Amino acid sequence: MSDIQSNLKQSNAAYAASFDQGHLALPPAKKYLVLTCMDARIDPAAALGITLGDAHVIRNAGASAVDALRSIVISQQLLGTHEIVLIKHTGCGMLTFTNEDARGLVEKNLGKEARAELGDLDFLPFPELDSAVKKDIAFIKQSKLVPDDVIISGWVYEVETGKVRQVV
Amino acid sequence: MSDIQSNLKQSNAAYAASFDQGHLALPPAKKYLVLTCMDARIDPAAALGITLGDAHVIRNAGASAVDALRSIVISQQLLGTHEIVLIKHTGCGMLTFTNEDARGLVEKNLGKEARAELGDLDFLPFPELDSAVKKDIAFIKQSKLVPDDVIISGWVYEVETGKVRQVV
Repeated sequence: MSDIQSNLKQSNAAYAASFDQGHLALPPAKKYLVLTCMDARIDPAAALGITLGDAHVIRNAGASAVDALRSIVISQQLLGTHEIVLIKHTGCGMLTFTNEDARGLVEKNLGKEARAELGDLDFLPFPELDSAVKKDIAFIKQSKLVPDDVIISGWVYEVETGKVRQVV
Repeated sequence: MSDIQSNLKQSNAAYAASFDQGHLALPPAKKYLVLTCMDARIDPAAALGITLGDAHVIRNAGASAVDALRSIVISQQLLGTHEIVLIKHTGCGMLTFTNEDARGLVEKNLGKEARAELGDLDFLPFPELDSAVKKDIAFIKQSKLVPDDVIISGWVYEVETGKVRQVV
């Protein structure tokens, strides 16, 4: 067992020992979903005040709405959410490379077979933060898979200060 | 501004007021990534002992490794992680429907244009929990995009008890 796995087991035992939220229902109680980045410096529950059981939390590289569409549709159509909070952040890794860079790295580090497996996968990097928030919000709004009455907002989280600011 | 958005602003202001982690670096300090479900009943940081800055956290409907592959490759090739902790959970929504069900719901609720936009999107539901963990771990292990020396483990989180148990 790795150190990471040991730490997980030990931390979880302490968490479970005082756990008293086993009654929570499957559908999010406050019927919203938060879409944010996988970045290690973001703790959505703490930083955004998400109470256990209240909201779906989707996280991927860059908080991409395109990448999250499957999860968004499931959240809304099967589990009844009708508000989306999209949060990208300062210092995001997705600001630091292009598809060409990433594809080149895969071939260099993992070889030609890995590069072939990648195909034309879009890593979905973006060159500027606020415009990326706006672009993703526009993508969600134009999609027929998200009903027009869903409330949608776009934000930036600052990893330097812990503060959010609304963009859209 | 919606109630959800007001709550987010207010909760974040309190969080930011005592925030002192602005120095954390972009690459995860403990070089691992956690892949889990978007389910509202999971708080990964608290339940799994993830310290801010230590790990990428990827979340989608069902903790699907197939869906997360883009984020996994970015985490490993661009940001240096080399351990994957995959955690599905009891009571998952993905156990409760099929692709046919979901596609039918989309057409019924959102109309034919939405159904057309969906195309042949796989919602990635699964009929049984432990076998789904094993299947995703097998998917990761066979992928040339994940190097053979990456440490991989698969777990189930029990939403009823707050406990994890290792499957793979």
